[in-house]
Amino acid sequence: MQRWNGWGDDAVYMDLSPQALKLLCELIGEGRVCPDYPLEKFLENMPEARLSKHPLISFDAKLRLDHAHGQSMADWIGLRGGTLKRFPDGVSVPETVEEIHELLRFAAEQNAVVIPYGGGTSVVGHLEVPQTERPVLCLSLERYNRLISIDIRSRLAVFEAGIRGPRLEQQLNSKGFTLGHYPQSFEYSSLGGWVVTRSSGQQSKHYGRIEQLFAGGELLSPQGPLKLPAHPASAAGPDLRQLLLGSEGRMGVLTKAVVHIAAVPEKDVVYGVFFPSWEEASQAVHAIAGTDIPFSMIRLSNPTETMTHLTLAGHEGQVALLKRYLRLRGIHEKEACMCLIGFTGSRRITSASRRAAFSIVRHHKGISLGKPMGNAWIKNRFYTAYLRNTLWDLGYAVDTLETAVNWDQVTPTMAAIEKSIHEAL
Amino acid sequence: MQRWNGWGDDAVYMDLSPQALKLLCELIGEGRVCPDYPLEKFLENMPEARLSKHPLISFDAKLRLDHAHGQSMADWIGLRGGTLKRFPDGVSVPETVEEIHELLRFAAEQNAVVIPYGGGTSVVGHLEVPQTERPVLCLSLERYNRLISIDIRSRLAVFEAGIRGPRLEQQLNSKGFTLGHYPQSFEYSSLGGWVVTRSSGQQSKHYGRIEQLFAGGELLSPQGPLKLPAHPASAAGPDLRQLLLGSEGRMGVLTKAVVHIAAVPEKDVVYGVFFPSWEEASQAVHAIAGTDIPFSMIRLSNPTETMTHLTLAGHEGQVALLKRYLRLRGIHEKEACMCLIGFTGSRRITSASRRAAFSIVRHHKGISLGKPMGNAWIKNRFYTAYLRNTLWDLGYAVDTLETAVNWDQVTPTMAAIEKSIHEAL
Repeated sequence: MQRWNGWGDDAVYMDLSPQALKLLCELIGEGRVCPDYPLEKFLENMPEARLSKHPLISFDAKLRLDHAHGQSMADWIGLRGGTLKRFPDGVSVPETVEEIHELLRFAAEQNAVVIPYGGGTSVVGHLEVPQTERPVLCLSLERYNRLISIDIRSRLAVFEAGIRGPRLEQQLNSKGFTLGHYPQSFEYSSLGGWVVTRSSGQQSKHYGRIEQLFAGGELLSPQGPLKLPAHPASAAGPDLRQLLLGSEGRMGVLTKAVVHIAAVPEKDVVYGVFFPSWEEASQAVHAIAGTDIPFSMIRLSNPTETMTHLTLAGHEGQVALLKRYLRLRGIHEKEACMCLIGFTGSRRITSASRRAAFSIVRHHKGISLGKPMGNAWIKNRFYTAYLRNTLWDLGYAVDTLETAVNWDQVTPTMAAIEKSIHEAL
Repeated sequence: MQRWNGWGDDAVYMDLSPQALKLLCELIGEGRVCPDYPLEKFLENMPEARLSKHPLISFDAKLRLDHAHGQSMADWIGLRGGTLKRFPDGVSVPETVEEIHELLRFAAEQNAVVIPYGGGTSVVGHLEVPQTERPVLCLSLERYNRLISIDIRSRLAVFEAGIRGPRLEQQLNSKGFTLGHYPQSFEYSSLGGWVVTRSSGQQSKHYGRIEQLFAGGELLSPQGPLKLPAHPASAAGPDLRQLLLGSEGRMGVLTKAVVHIAAVPEKDVVYGVFFPSWEEASQAVHAIAGTDIPFSMIRLSNPTETMTHLTLAGHEGQVALLKRYLRLRGIHEKEACMCLIGFTGSRRITSASRRAAFSIVRHHKGISLGKPMGNAWIKNRFYTAYLRNTLWDLGYAVDTLETAVNWDQVTPTMAAIEKSIHEAL
């Protein structure tokens, strides 16, 4: 079952090794464990619903709690500390576009605020119930989640927008296709959510960000429907799809989404590479990005993150062996930068790409450790989010910072962020 | 000098061979030569300017005529037939952003309509002077055309938006970079024009369409300036740059544009390929497009266009030889489909791409004729527009139809367009 006050399924637990805990202690001090606010208290104190009854709307207290937040640090503090005080008055889980239409009509009649809800993984507060005298209706699309049609020739698929990552990929994979959109929240976030939040995935360099994958769709707004046809390209005026992308559900409910799909790739591989210093590493990555090499992903870690990764990986013996090997090859533990480089596509193109990328890696004194490290990353890529649960229990609050900067700002930005965090902790 | 009533420089003349003229005659009948309306008449009849004097504004009749139209068929008919009746009252060619600012202020004071003018190559009528009682000021950016700065590390260049294709590439090439944006109008159209018309270039599959190349810029509107910073990526709300793209100058004057640049590629090659039928050809192109092969361009011609191309090429002996060779290889003249496939980038990636693409070509019974045909296309790619002049003089009006359709509509759309044109002629 999905955790009510944390990330993901409560059957999944990510263990933390004693060495990892020790490293954390050294880096940022001892954790401060706080007692969790109990579920029962939330349910007991649930305020009375300010909405009239409607056959499609539930006033169940647990449902209202579950739909009152996303997954930001602020949301977690509200849940774990019991400071979350505002809840939607009702929650509806429509299964047809007619039901969504009816709910919008009813909301207008009741002068209610409507909050469209996809996977509940937002970290930018758009699921937060506003401070208002008006009743608030949460409209969850989790059961509006079917594959409507697929056009193999045009490589387009039409989905009900509430479909979540795993189900979407399963449906496409069974026909030999993929969308290839893998944000960290993949397991819970929805297609509609990806579109309205301008989502990026881990292999978006290959498949395209959601802006490129989103070909069109249908929006149901309180003022009526808006159809955005899946034109392959148009130069006739501004692109209205771009207004929907990033709208965070504020323009209405995205009900249907047409997306560009691709054949399941022959190869989907990630290599682990180590560089002797941040300078060499960042130069290598800059150089690869400046070529035409069609890599699908590059993730570069600085020395602190590299050490953290290795310690978290937990296999003490293997890690010691790795460190010794790196030293022999002239890469010192304290300066080592780990880099994951992915290639996705046909055998022919991915191997030409790998050869081209690795010749740049070698030029910058990097060494490849082959695929095992990449395979481990692929295996765990959606599980690292579960570490938030483990660490919270140990008294550490985890948050993610994401940003995009131009190349000239990469190293200065990294240094500034590290400095601020160090000083704050 | 630039032709006043046709395309391009009047020193360039594209000859038409007797065979080509014969083919045209057979396909669509004899041309109907119409006498050109003379320049003098336009200048004599130029209506009085309805704008007050201003040191930055010229009322010169020739200048007003030259800025009263784009290059659409309707524009040509107006120019050649003398039916063009509306002209801007004044034309200004500012050289600084302060001058642009002053002109917008003056226009507001005079209640004038402002038409921003880039290269004058629009074919969608946005340079057309509207029917209005208000005075009309044409604001041409042709002298606001410098490279402002270049950031080699971030691969970004900042230009004054009036810069035209050849000068822009020359400036970047001298530093080892390219924008790689080659619309048919490249020689005359401007960077600002590309942005506000959502331009696509011949190698946009490789470099990205202008939507991808445009990183940010500055707009000067009658309500004040709008700065769009060159963020590499943002998921924070809708992308305002997308409102400017396709705005056709209606939101103000795009004064500065920041663009993503790339290193000048090692290889930039185009291969000529022939297929025995439209069916095989379109299947091959669909298959290549569905892979991860990073080609930079595919141009497929149907049998009619293939025959026209070959006849226009003019080297009768060579073409006869080619036809004989194709017949020997089982490709019959009447069914032959010519296809140009381009690869741009590093030696390593382009050759892997070529091998991968050609194995699909062979699977669909296509044969490659190597690079000569591609080289001829590269050499002439901006000259074919000059054929419009030649053909008009022979009594034929030439127009271009461009569209984008999803794959399932490719063959039906082509058939429908050919049928309509045949019936209309």
